Amino acid sequence: MAIDYETILKGKYPAKDHARRVVDQIRSKRPDATGVLYLESRKTKLLEDNDEPEPFRQRRFFYYLTGCPLADSYVIHDIDSSKTTLFIPPIDPDSVIWSGLPLSAAEALEAYDVDEVKYTTDINASLAHLGSAKPGATVFAIPHYVSEAVTFLEFDGKDFSLLQPAIETARVVKSPYELALIAKANAVSHAAHTAVFSRASTVTNERELEAAFLASCIAAGARNQAYHGIFASGRAAATLHYTRNDAPTAGKLNLLVDAGCEWNCYASDITRTFPINGKFSTESRAIYDVVLRMQDECIAMLRAGVRWEDVHIRAHEVAIEGLLGLGIFKAGSDKAEILKARTSVAFFPHGLGHYLGMDTHDTGGNPDYADKDVMFRYLRVRGTLPEGSVVTVEPGVYFCRFIIEPFLKDEKHRGFIDEEVLERYWDVGGVRIEDNVVITKDGIENLTTVPKDPEELEKIVLAGQA
Amino acid sequence: MAIDYETILKGKYPAKDHARRVVDQIRSKRPDATGVLYLESRKTKLLEDNDEPEPFRQRRFFYYLTGCPLADSYVIHDIDSSKTTLFIPPIDPDSVIWSGLPLSAAEALEAYDVDEVKYTTDINASLAHLGSAKPGATVFAIPHYVSEAVTFLEFDGKDFSLLQPAIETARVVKSPYELALIAKANAVSHAAHTAVFSRASTVTNERELEAAFLASCIAAGARNQAYHGIFASGRAAATLHYTRNDAPTAGKLNLLVDAGCEWNCYASDITRTFPINGKFSTESRAIYDVVLRMQDECIAMLRAGVRWEDVHIRAHEVAIEGLLGLGIFKAGSDKAEILKARTSVAFFPHGLGHYLGMDTHDTGGNPDYADKDVMFRYLRVRGTLPEGSVVTVEPGVYFCRFIIEPFLKDEKHRGFIDEEVLERYWDVGGVRIEDNVVITKDGIENLTTVPKDPEELEKIVLAGQA
Repeated sequence: MAIDYETILKGKYPAKDHARRVVDQIRSKRPDATGVLYLESRKTKLLEDNDEPEPFRQRRFFYYLTGCPLADSYVIHDIDSSKTTLFIPPIDPDSVIWSGLPLSAAEALEAYDVDEVKYTTDINASLAHLGSAKPGATVFAIPHYVSEAVTFLEFDGKDFSLLQPAIETARVVKSPYELALIAKANAVSHAAHTAVFSRASTVTNERELEAAFLASCIAAGARNQAYHGIFASGRAAATLHYTRNDAPTAGKLNLLVDAGCEWNCYASDITRTFPINGKFSTESRAIYDVVLRMQDECIAMLRAGVRWEDVHIRAHEVAIEGLLGLGIFKAGSDKAEILKARTSVAFFPHGLGHYLGMDTHDTGGNPDYADKDVMFRYLRVRGTLPEGSVVTVEPGVYFCRFIIEPFLKDEKHRGFIDEEVLERYWDVGGVRIEDNVVITKDGIENLTTVPKDPEELEKIVLAGQA
Repeated sequence: MAIDYETILKGKYPAKDHARRVVDQIRSKRPDATGVLYLESRKTKLLEDNDEPEPFRQRRFFYYLTGCPLADSYVIHDIDSSKTTLFIPPIDPDSVIWSGLPLSAAEALEAYDVDEVKYTTDINASLAHLGSAKPGATVFAIPHYVSEAVTFLEFDGKDFSLLQPAIETARVVKSPYELALIAKANAVSHAAHTAVFSRASTVTNERELEAAFLASCIAAGARNQAYHGIFASGRAAATLHYTRNDAPTAGKLNLLVDAGCEWNCYASDITRTFPINGKFSTESRAIYDVVLRMQDECIAMLRAGVRWEDVHIRAHEVAIEGLLGLGIFKAGSDKAEILKARTSVAFFPHGLGHYLGMDTHDTGGNPDYADKDVMFRYLRVRGTLPEGSVVTVEPGVYFCRFIIEPFLKDEKHRGFIDEEVLERYWDVGGVRIEDNVVITKDGIENLTTVPKDPEELEKIVLAGQA
């Protein structure tokens, strides 16, 4: 059952529901909390030594409680009355001449799920009023995100520690509207990935494919990408964070595309790998099949309460089976021994996935980058997945000399790897397949609809040549 | 004679020549200056609350003396020996695993016009050596652009005031290589503007045209725009800083496109206005002809030593003649009286143009935004233009209610304007035509090659419908 995001998105972003979730989190730590939540949006800022504004990215904490994309704004949420007041920049006649009319308070009240809209010139008076009206009231804010001109003078208490973790935790379980936003971002990115498949065999350079992806998103109304996309042809796909996207594509086997747009501050994050000329080589198809099986088996395990580490281990087990089947791991090696030695990390060095939301690597994952076990060090989510969370499932198998060669020199690992067989796979570069899934009570809902069946991919690429 | 930019750009960016220009500027203020120039590039920085890097924009002062686009780097230029030493980030094995091999010192020495390349781990030792080797030596730097870890302990003098204005002044007169970079940016933008013309009559929304522009630039290797482009259909073109670029195009008369890419940190800045359906209306063609005449006559005046204010006045004179001819200024009004009253500012409210270089609004223009004369207040260049400077020539005529209506209510102006005739022109929105020209001894060289002949524009748009 796919999410009917178009219908859901006709409503307002549920800022008040989100505020309730945040207050619940705060009260789980401090049951008697009373007072207000206070947040600021990002400030307008110019580029260094230049009169052009910096690219604007709304502050996520503020967006979560307002759904408002405006710069230079404030929000106050009264914990006891559940009243949300938004403060937006006043109309500046000089600026209207150059930039046209900005949103009015009345229009903002219509657009956002808030109870009142005032202009930012009123912020201090409103805070003073709220503080003095309630003896014992606390203002909950985030340190460094309080403008110098803003004062909390009338409040008895100031708590600068609870609000940020409360929002970060609340964000893990998505509201239906948030799921719809991620689904919409996925739909726009679906069209952009397809545009890349269709053009791949006709271009000469990776950057033309990046251009096609971005143009497809912008034309559909998604001006921002969730992250800097990867358009890696051939061996470049073995560089996990490749973002040069400027190499010739001629003669390369595969293209790995890891790219996704944002829709109203919500991310999509999708990877596909496909043959540039429309036909997988034997080796690249073999690796593709291993990675697809890794993803299929991991997705089959998912449901509310599953331990992410267990799913990550399953990805490694499937990878080990696959590479044994291809002879990259030497025939006769013991699967459990390879897993225990962590030798498969040579080919699958990163984590299986991460939470996805307003940030691509979303809050609440509690990673342990100091983990002594290299298999879990880069896993961005630790522990169990709650119902309503969204994770990426992105297994991969890579042939990266910088990563593999130390394993080949290491007593502990080299006995498992057949260097002669391995030699045939360097040109595959790397294969990654990444979908965005919602964790449900009994399983998942996959928000990513971009084709990944290898034969279907071949067909789309070949059709683009016509 | 067009600039053969492809040949020039095969050479290195002339960092040493630029350093000489900067030293000349410093010595014009302080003839005995000895010691070193010290500059830092931009630092790598993450987005707020996110692990994605901020979009990177190289610090212009650093680029001018190095031609090096790398982050987290330093440069020392020894004034007396004219030796330039570049310091680039060392190779970090952990980062290689994720991001591949960075530039080595040997490769950087090959790529940039510098005498020596070291790693940034050597910066303090090198500064200490240079300072102690020369009693009386001064380090010239820019305040706020010196990392905390960098020390100038061994220098007798520190001058944090002369370097920035010296570079800003040196940048006004472009080196041939800089002209080639601006010409190349113009060539890439030319193709992008043409892509917009060709698609205009087939799309439904401005954002599709912005997408086409960006895709054309990125596919050609120009990842950065010089500024946020304007894609304004119909009356939106009257909003001078319109950047929403998300309105339907159906039924609108014209599209105003003000957009230009960067090429290796150098800007292009080009505006064209054309009929969306491929055929100018009577009114929009009439205004187009006035603006084109404004531009033609201004360009005809240009040569080294011309006063920019005089050219700007000429644009107003031509506008007044044109609007008189159309009856927007009442027949029988005295041209000189209209000019003296500044009534033409209602239709042409901005300055004629600005210096162009590494910044879109480049350094050295000495504007006076407090000028009491509204005709000159927004003029970004004041005084005479030197040979080798690059300016934009961008006259416009706009029909913006926010700007014009106060004039209609003002005793001083309203007698000149025929409101009944004006009524027919609101749908024209605005027309601007903008080229980038090099000031030469006897005239100019126009770096902008995008068509502007109104009939040629109509032809290109119509051809796109086929």
